[in-house]
Amino acid sequence: MCRWLAYSGTPILLDELLYKPRFSLIDQSMHSRMGVETTNGDGVGVGWYGSEDQPVPALFRGVGPAWGDVNLRELARVTRSGLFLAHIRASTGTPVQQTNCHPFRFGRWLWCHNGSIKNFHELRRDLLLAVDPELFPSIAGSTDSEVMFYLALTFGLRDDPLRGVERMAGLVEQVAAAHGVADPLQMTVGASDGDRVWAFRYSSVGKSRTLFFSTALNALRALHPDFALIQGLSEETRLIVSEPLGELAGAWQPVPESSYGVIQKGDDELGAFTPR
Amino acid sequence: MCRWLAYSGTPILLDELLYKPRFSLIDQSMHSRMGVETTNGDGVGVGWYGSEDQPVPALFRGVGPAWGDVNLRELARVTRSGLFLAHIRASTGTPVQQTNCHPFRFGRWLWCHNGSIKNFHELRRDLLLAVDPELFPSIAGSTDSEVMFYLALTFGLRDDPLRGVERMAGLVEQVAAAHGVADPLQMTVGASDGDRVWAFRYSSVGKSRTLFFSTALNALRALHPDFALIQGLSEETRLIVSEPLGELAGAWQPVPESSYGVIQKGDDELGAFTPR
Amino acid sequence: MCRWLAYSGTPILLDELLYKPRFSLIDQSMHSRMGVETTNGDGVGVGWYGSEDQPVPALFRGVGPAWGDVNLRELARVTRSGLFLAHIRASTGTPVQQTNCHPFRFGRWLWCHNGSIKNFHELRRDLLLAVDPELFPSIAGSTDSEVMFYLALTFGLRDDPLRGVERMAGLVEQVAAAHGVADPLQMTVGASDGDRVWAFRYSSVGKSRTLFFSTALNALRALHPDFALIQGLSEETRLIVSEPLGELAGAWQPVPESSYGVIQKGDDELGAFTPR
Amino acid sequence: MCRWLAYSGTPILLDELLYKPRFSLIDQSMHSRMGVETTNGDGVGVGWYGSEDQPVPALFRGVGPAWGDVNLRELARVTRSGLFLAHIRASTGTPVQQTNCHPFRFGRWLWCHNGSIKNFHELRRDLLLAVDPELFPSIAGSTDSEVMFYLALTFGLRDDPLRGVERMAGLVEQVAAAHGVADPLQMTVGASDGDRVWAFRYSSVGKSRTLFFSTALNALRALHPDFALIQGLSEETRLIVSEPLGELAGAWQPVPESSYGVIQKGDDELGAFTPR
Repeated sequence: MCRWLAYSGTPILLDELLYKPRFSLIDQSMHSRMGVETTNGDGVGVGWYGSEDQPVPALFRGVGPAWGDVNLRELARVTRSGLFLAHIRASTGTPVQQTNCHPFRFGRWLWCHNGSIKNFHELRRDLLLAVDPELFPSIAGSTDSEVMFYLALTFGLRDDPLRGVERMAGLVEQVAAAHGVADPLQMTVGASDGDRVWAFRYSSVGKSRTLFFSTALNALRALHPDFALIQGLSEETRLIVSEPLGELAGAWQPVPESSYGVIQKGDDELGAFTPR
Repeated sequence: MCRWLAYSGTPILLDELLYKPRFSLIDQSMHSRMGVETTNGDGVGVGWYGSEDQPVPALFRGVGPAWGDVNLRELARVTRSGLFLAHIRASTGTPVQQTNCHPFRFGRWLWCHNGSIKNFHELRRDLLLAVDPELFPSIAGSTDSEVMFYLALTFGLRDDPLRGVERMAGLVEQVAAAHGVADPLQMTVGASDGDRVWAFRYSSVGKSRTLFFSTALNALRALHPDFALIQGLSEETRLIVSEPLGELAGAWQPVPESSYGVIQKGDDELGAFTPR
Repeated sequence: MCRWLAYSGTPILLDELLYKPRFSLIDQSMHSRMGVETTNGDGVGVGWYGSEDQPVPALFRGVGPAWGDVNLRELARVTRSGLFLAHIRASTGTPVQQTNCHPFRFGRWLWCHNGSIKNFHELRRDLLLAVDPELFPSIAGSTDSEVMFYLALTFGLRDDPLRGVERMAGLVEQVAAAHGVADPLQMTVGASDGDRVWAFRYSSVGKSRTLFFSTALNALRALHPDFALIQGLSEETRLIVSEPLGELAGAWQPVPESSYGVIQKGDDELGAFTPR
Repeated sequence: MCRWLAYSGTPILLDELLYKPRFSLIDQSMHSRMGVETTNGDGVGVGWYGSEDQPVPALFRGVGPAWGDVNLRELARVTRSGLFLAHIRASTGTPVQQTNCHPFRFGRWLWCHNGSIKNFHELRRDLLLAVDPELFPSIAGSTDSEVMFYLALTFGLRDDPLRGVERMAGLVEQVAAAHGVADPLQMTVGASDGDRVWAFRYSSVGKSRTLFFSTALNALRALHPDFALIQGLSEETRLIVSEPLGELAGAWQPVPESSYGVIQKGDDELGAFTPR
């Protein structure tokens, strides 16, 4: 299992979310409170979007535990971004190596995942076969998470993200059924193209890993008029997290079971997620 | 804080103690039950003595978490030794790097440590100055543990281990006092020259980290006649551990506060430890 | 490109071949004289067979340059084996990670490779599809070399090694032709099941990377009566190397273009290699 | 030995100097033409100054070979700076670990070094003793280069850089003489406080490692009116390098033996360097 967060809004230093909050993401690498495992020490990654002239997000991925990654700490101290995804990894069996660290990237897209495909070892070949041969050469690692990304890309993630991910989930369940594997998929997924952020919470068994989004900023500011950080953020700033950061009362709303959300300019979206 | 073990007796595969027991040392790297931290993911090391013609023990040290070290797993599977020390590290501030992994080695000697010197940062220079200039060039890392080893060597570890370690502890407390640092030393230490194993349990404050030695083999075999592994071990086989491995009732005796023990041919020793 | 060696004969310390000779394998990691690149700094590995009760060879693989791998140096100092393969890697594009280091292992088998499949990126999917689905889940990395191994296993390596490798080479050339890739295969391969060692030298273009085997020991001992190391080795001791170690005149015979050799009890074999 | 560069001028992407030029610094990690070794594969580092509100430069340091560092490549692609130092390492005996990678940093200061102190092992203790006890706790690694930095800081680097480095060199030569070590110091050093860049070229034996600075931009632009990159750079842009990047005729001036230079607003400086 893993932990991840996605931030969209007023540009801030990565530091503000990766290190500073009580129960920050990096803190969760050693002391997750809601994860299946308390330790997420098998790698760390962050992908961030920058200025207009650099549409491809930058990626930093380290194989050691997040809590000891000196380069990440430096990077977070000086890097400002208005849209980034970060992830800490707890391997479910695949090797600890940079190509298995999230976020995964394809063109402008970033993808990170918490969960697993049951018996992935056994299903992997059939799932890989379903990946578009044009996309196949870009698969660099050996995780279920990356194959899910390339399946979603194959099924149209770039044009219709909800449909792309729903069809990916549908295929996983269909391939698993053919192999006699019940309740195969467990996932929370964060994805972005640099403009919007999509989050998905689903599991075949109907008991998905936790996922939260942040309360609307104006409501949150009213609740906590003395909290400096949030006073400086725009109305549209949002955060999606595997488990709450910090201790701000009223700050977090659970993403419902089997649903998806979109953070975007204007009204955000929240709807049902149904594998196809 | 850290966890360690020392084994002396009938040659066995490292595997038998590093991986196989419930609550094995490697398992403790993610789920320590008695440590100050549950996670000891900042490196791992094992030093083992081999055949007569190789008096210098071999050393394997990895900087990643023990639970994911594929090379260690292989090594443990094929390496048989009658005397070895193993250690998993939780850094108390010094960098995660191979030269900071235990055991430390000097000639035939191995040394591993659980604990810390309080405000080591501040005391380090004075402690280093007290190291014999002949030995000084062999210091390769930046931990308190390694400086303690070289101080013990300076004070005669090789000729009179108890006295060497007692004088080291005395010096640490004296230097700390000069800097106004109270209760500076917290340690369990394991050391060996390839013939005997010494264990030390001490803390300035009188509340030392846990340390256990294994019950005499004949008593243990009588208690557990059906447990295959221990039936094949010699009478003199002993194990010292930061926290118990496995679940064998009656297998572990706590090392008393402020004391030392020696595992050796013939009767073992246990006595009081007093910094000098 | 890469460098490798295979040793079979009187058990010796790995040290004797990995570090001690002038132009040793580890020396070649920084200063190869015959390689396409002088530097082979993208990882190192050694697989060695041990005692009868451990039929599966042990594996050590490191991602850093061989010249600086402290653990390998220790291991080589204390590990004795009568059959081992060692490899230093110069990546031809795939990531530097442990799962891409040679030797690769499957059951009792070890495999190491110098060379490449041209445009592997483009051919990879079709080659993977040809791997036996039963074997597929064991593929852990992303190199051409490992896919070649699993294709050879698919085509019967374990029963008829020559035929297995010839059919693998045939398939690579056939798939490449279908993609319009000319002269795709460049290889020297070393493989072993713990009893015999096979070596293959082949390239589609007919200009293969160098490969040498050692002169028969009795002849070599006659040439160099004063060279201690070789006086202690058995008649049947043989070495196969990408480029000569040491400076012993008359010690090395080139493996002919498009041929294979087998080191085994009794007479060794040498014959033509023809992709099928 | 090592290679380094220092850039000061119009903010550019690190990429432009680390990767893009023929004979770029990263290229030199595998194929140095002027170094004592052709390979500089024992780590890499870059320190860069950013915006006004972040006076402490950011640091990225990796222990693997520069040519394969994926995180550095990403960082260089998106990081723009008007003052940065970069370094590739070839260890002269001290361990390959992050704390031994250059640049070293203290407060606003960065320091990188090519060269060595002869018999450093033997002189290290006396040199460390000469470091200001207030500064001593900040020494994190085990290289001669870092001790040189802290000696220079001890001798006033921050107030009078030339004098600080001259006194450091003087002390090294004096301590070496006391130990009977002749011609101990070999160095090119780059240092910066974020406003100016200092470069030093000196060796006790009078045959120092190469060092070059870039020709004045207006002269260079006149020579190469068609070279886009340099047309966009300010008059005051300068580069100092261990060995020339690119192939621009007339672009590089050797720094004379036993001399120092300062890149700063207004006229640069060049003068004699004399150990004190």
